[in-house]
Amino acid sequence: MTNRATCILTISCADTTGLVAAIAQFLSNHGAFITESAQYGDPATCRFFMRVAFHYNTATHSLARLHAEFHPIAAHYGMDYGFTSPEAKPKVVILVSKFGHCLNDLLFRMRSGGLHMDVPAIISNHTTHADVAKWHGVPFHHIPATPENKPQAEAAIEQVIAASGADLIVLARYMQVLSPTLSEKYAGRIINIHHSFLPSFKGAEPYSQAHARGVKIIGATAHYVTQELDEGPIIEQRVERVDHNRAVPDLVALGRDLEAITLARAVQAHIQRRVFVNGRKTVVFS
Amino acid sequence: MTNRATCILTISCADTTGLVAAIAQFLSNHGAFITESAQYGDPATCRFFMRVAFHYNTATHSLARLHAEFHPIAAHYGMDYGFTSPEAKPKVVILVSKFGHCLNDLLFRMRSGGLHMDVPAIISNHTTHADVAKWHGVPFHHIPATPENKPQAEAAIEQVIAASGADLIVLARYMQVLSPTLSEKYAGRIINIHHSFLPSFKGAEPYSQAHARGVKIIGATAHYVTQELDEGPIIEQRVERVDHNRAVPDLVALGRDLEAITLARAVQAHIQRRVFVNGRKTVVFS
Amino acid sequence: MTNRATCILTISCADTTGLVAAIAQFLSNHGAFITESAQYGDPATCRFFMRVAFHYNTATHSLARLHAEFHPIAAHYGMDYGFTSPEAKPKVVILVSKFGHCLNDLLFRMRSGGLHMDVPAIISNHTTHADVAKWHGVPFHHIPATPENKPQAEAAIEQVIAASGADLIVLARYMQVLSPTLSEKYAGRIINIHHSFLPSFKGAEPYSQAHARGVKIIGATAHYVTQELDEGPIIEQRVERVDHNRAVPDLVALGRDLEAITLARAVQAHIQRRVFVNGRKTVVFS
Amino acid sequence: MTNRATCILTISCADTTGLVAAIAQFLSNHGAFITESAQYGDPATCRFFMRVAFHYNTATHSLARLHAEFHPIAAHYGMDYGFTSPEAKPKVVILVSKFGHCLNDLLFRMRSGGLHMDVPAIISNHTTHADVAKWHGVPFHHIPATPENKPQAEAAIEQVIAASGADLIVLARYMQVLSPTLSEKYAGRIINIHHSFLPSFKGAEPYSQAHARGVKIIGATAHYVTQELDEGPIIEQRVERVDHNRAVPDLVALGRDLEAITLARAVQAHIQRRVFVNGRKTVVFS
Repeated sequence: MTNRATCILTISCADTTGLVAAIAQFLSNHGAFITESAQYGDPATCRFFMRVAFHYNTATHSLARLHAEFHPIAAHYGMDYGFTSPEAKPKVVILVSKFGHCLNDLLFRMRSGGLHMDVPAIISNHTTHADVAKWHGVPFHHIPATPENKPQAEAAIEQVIAASGADLIVLARYMQVLSPTLSEKYAGRIINIHHSFLPSFKGAEPYSQAHARGVKIIGATAHYVTQELDEGPIIEQRVERVDHNRAVPDLVALGRDLEAITLARAVQAHIQRRVFVNGRKTVVFS
Repeated sequence: MTNRATCILTISCADTTGLVAAIAQFLSNHGAFITESAQYGDPATCRFFMRVAFHYNTATHSLARLHAEFHPIAAHYGMDYGFTSPEAKPKVVILVSKFGHCLNDLLFRMRSGGLHMDVPAIISNHTTHADVAKWHGVPFHHIPATPENKPQAEAAIEQVIAASGADLIVLARYMQVLSPTLSEKYAGRIINIHHSFLPSFKGAEPYSQAHARGVKIIGATAHYVTQELDEGPIIEQRVERVDHNRAVPDLVALGRDLEAITLARAVQAHIQRRVFVNGRKTVVFS
Repeated sequence: MTNRATCILTISCADTTGLVAAIAQFLSNHGAFITESAQYGDPATCRFFMRVAFHYNTATHSLARLHAEFHPIAAHYGMDYGFTSPEAKPKVVILVSKFGHCLNDLLFRMRSGGLHMDVPAIISNHTTHADVAKWHGVPFHHIPATPENKPQAEAAIEQVIAASGADLIVLARYMQVLSPTLSEKYAGRIINIHHSFLPSFKGAEPYSQAHARGVKIIGATAHYVTQELDEGPIIEQRVERVDHNRAVPDLVALGRDLEAITLARAVQAHIQRRVFVNGRKTVVFS
Repeated sequence: MTNRATCILTISCADTTGLVAAIAQFLSNHGAFITESAQYGDPATCRFFMRVAFHYNTATHSLARLHAEFHPIAAHYGMDYGFTSPEAKPKVVILVSKFGHCLNDLLFRMRSGGLHMDVPAIISNHTTHADVAKWHGVPFHHIPATPENKPQAEAAIEQVIAASGADLIVLARYMQVLSPTLSEKYAGRIINIHHSFLPSFKGAEPYSQAHARGVKIIGATAHYVTQELDEGPIIEQRVERVDHNRAVPDLVALGRDLEAITLARAVQAHIQRRVFVNGRKTVVFS
C-alpha cells in the first residue's frame, strides 16, 4: 500500500452514451483502483452526475497530473469536474445566533475527527458563544444585526468569509435572513438548517406552526440557501414522532437533536463531495 | 374470570380539580378493575380527555346500568362520555376509487381479525373493486361521480351510509371531494387518507409535488374530514426515506405501503375509541 | 423510443483494476444508454458486484447476442454474469402455514402490478388459504407436515417446485424448517421472513422472547435460507417502536405489518436483480 | 399562578381495585390540579405503576406535608412512592473512557438546560477528557483501571460516588465492567449505554459483530446495569438503517450519534421520574 493515495473524482454534465466508458477507461489507463463509485442520470433534466473514489500510485501520478490529463475528456463532454484529496480539510465558516446546539455539535465533531474540516471563523450576532469558540481555538466575530445596520453587517460578514478562504458557510441556527446578493454569490456553498420538515412550516416559529396544526411527526431540513427563503435544494431531512402530549417547548427540545444531526449529516455529505445541485433539487450519493 | 367483561369508558370535558377522583371513585364503587387508563389535559384549550378500560362483573353490572349511574357525575362536570364494549363491532363503510391497496388492506384485516369491525357497504365511483367486495361478501355500490351528477351522487352515497347504520366512513383513496354538507354531517366520523405528509403537498398529485420539491422523506396522513380540504384533525402520519433516484412512479409505489398502514392504524385507533377531536387537532391514546 | 428495450446486467467477480472500464466499454460499443448503475467492491472479500440497467436498440441487438458477445470479457475476468429483461416475470412459489398476512400481501402486489412476478404454485401444510389461492387463480398444494412424514412431505414440495419451474421460493410464514438438502439445493433462491430483528430472538416464538426481554423496538428480517436456522444472509430488516404497554398479542399484530412489508421489499429486490450473496452477507443495490 | 408549584408523585405497588380512586381522592382533597398522569398495570407481574404531575398551593401545602399525609394510603396498599419537585436538580456522576461523544452531549445538555441536573464528578480511567470537565467546571477524577488494580479502582470510584451524593451514575461509554457488588449496591441507579441493539451483539466490539452478521439496521441501547453483563432492564433503544457499503468505522461513526441520543433520552426519562423497574424490564411513561 506504499505510494498509494485516495482521490475523489466528481463529475456533472449532460448525459450521453459512452460517458462512463470514457471515464472508466481514463481511470484504468492511469492504474486507478476504484473503491467507491456512484452515478445518476436524471431523466427529467438529462444531467449526469458521478462520484468515484479510487486509489492511485503517488510515485507515478499526482492530483494535478490527473486533472490536467483528464481535461480533454472533460472538454469533449462539457463536464464540470474536480479531483480532490479526502485528506484536504475544507474551511467551514459557521454563523450562529443564540441557540448553540448545532454549533456545539459541529465543533465537537471537528475536534473528535467526526467531521474532517477546519473552522477558521465563527460569526454571530450575539456574544453568547464567544467562550465556546475560544475554547475550540476558533476566532469569534461578533457582528450585531439590526434592521438598521443590515448592509454594513452583511459587508462585515462577507469580509470575514473572504478573509477566511471559506469553502463552505454553515448557518447553524443563524436567525437572520441573508441578502439575495450574498446567497447568490455563494450559491451551492451555504448550508442552512431549518427547524421543520420542509416544505411544511416555512418561515418563523415552525414548531409553533407544527403544534398548531397537530402533526404527529416533526422534522428538520438542511438545504442550500437560495434567494427564496426556505426554498433551496434539500440535502437532508430527518423526523421524529411526537404526540398530542408535547407542548411547543417539548417540540423545540426534541427538534434540537434533529437539527444538530441533520445539519451534521448534510455538512458531512458536502465535505465528502457527495452532494450535487440538480436544478432545485440535489443528488446525494450516500 | 367468569362473569367478567371489559368496558371502555371515554370522557371529554372542561378540565378541573377533582375530575379523576370522581371518575375513579365511581369505577371503584362499581368494582371495576382498571386494565388501561390514559388521560390528557390540554393547557391551551383547557379540555380534559380520558379513556379507561376496565373489567366489571357481569353478574352484578351491565353497560346500561353503568351508563345510567354515571350520568349524574357526567352531568355535574358537563362531560361527553360513553361506555362501550370492545366486543361490539363498529360498522365501517368504505369509499374507494381505482387504487385498491387500502381497500385490500382493510378487508384483509377485517377478515383475519386484525380490525374488529364489520363493513356493511363499499361505495365506489368505479367498478374496479366489485369482485373483491363480492369475495369478501360485502355489498358493493357503484355510484358514478361526474361534475354533472355530484348532488345526486352524494345523495346516493348518503342513502347507502344511512341505510348501513355506519359508525365510521373511511375514504380509502376515494378521489372525490365530499361536499361541506356531508363533511359536516359526519364530523369526526369520516377518516381520509391523504398521500402526503400534511400540511406539505395538499390537493392533487402530492407525489409529483414531492418529487418536484426534492424532499428526502415522503409521508402519508390519515385525518378526519372537515369542510376545508386536507385541513382536518390529523390522526396518524407515517414516513419513509427516499433519495434522488426515485422517480414519481417509485414514490407512488412506496407511498402505497405508507398509505395502507397509516389508514389502518387510524381506523384501529378510532374503533378502539383512542381518538378524541380537540379543536383542529386530535388526542390519540396509543 | 421505438426499437428500444431495457436490460439489466448483473456481474460478480474478483475485484481488480480495469473491470469497470471493460464493462463500460462493452456497453458503449453496443450503443447502450445507461439508466441506472451501482457497484460495490468489498475490501474484506475482494469481491466486486455490479448491476447496470441500460437501453439498447432491439433492431440491432438482442439479449442473446449481448450475452454471447460479453462472454469473452466475462471469461477473462472470471465473472458470474447475466443479462435479464425487466419484462420477464420470474416464477415465485410461495409456502405458507396458517398466518396469511404475507401471502395476502404478496398476492395483492402481484395482482396490482406492484410485484412483477407469476406465482405458479402455493404450498401449505394447512388448507386455511386454499380459497385465497383459488380466487387469485393460483394452484394450491396441500402438503401436510408431521414429524413422521417429513421426508415424504419435502419430496412432495420439491416435486411441486421442480414442476413449476420456480425461479424463487418464498417462505411466507411457513412454520416448518426445510431440510439442509433442500436449503442447499436452492441456495440463494429461498427467501424466509423471520419475525424478529435477527440475530436477536432466533427460533420459536420471537415475539414472546422480545416481550420477555423488554425491548423497546421490534423487527422483522427477510433472509436467504441456509442450512443453519435463521443464520442466512440478511436481505432486509425493518423495525417499529413499542413500549411496556404492548402485550405479546399486540407485538404479534404490529409485527404482521413489519413482516409483510419486509418480505415484499426483499422479494422485490431479488426479482429486480438487486441482491447479491456475498459470503454470509448480501449486497443490495436499492 | 401565584403560590403554585409542581410536584411529581410516583407510585409502584401490587395492583388492585380502588388504587386510582384512593390516589386521585387524596390529590383532589389537597386541591391538586393534575397536569399529567400515566399509569400501567402489568398483567404478568400484577404490579401497578403510576406517575402523576400536579400543581399544588404552596401557601397551604408542602412536599413534606403531602408526603406525610399520603403515608397512610401508601402503607395500606404497600406502595413504594415519592413526591418530587421538578425544580430539584439530581446529582449525576458520569464515568467515561476515551470516547467523548456521550460525555460532550450530556455536558452540553446540562449547560444549555436540556437536562435539568448537576454533575458533581466525572470519573475516567483516562485523562483524555480532563480539559472538557474543567471547562464545564466539573471535578475530574482520574482513576486508572488495570486488571491488577480492579478492587482498588472500584473502591476509589465508590468513594467519589458516595462523596458526591450521586442520585444517578451514568456509564457514558465507560469501557470497564463494574463489579457485581457495585452493580447491586446502586441497582436501578446506574445507566449504561451499549453500542448495539440488545440483545443482539452483547459484549465487546458490537459494531464488528454487526458488520460480520450483515445486519441492515444498527442500534444502541440504554439500560440499567445489573450483575449480568448487558442483561439489565432496557430503558431506551434507537436504530439507524445501514447498507453493505458501510465498513466497521462507518458503523462506529454512525453509532456515536445513536449512542449519544439514546443515552440522553434515558437519562432524561430517569431524571423526570418516568422510568420504573419492573422485574427484568422497565415501564417508561413518555
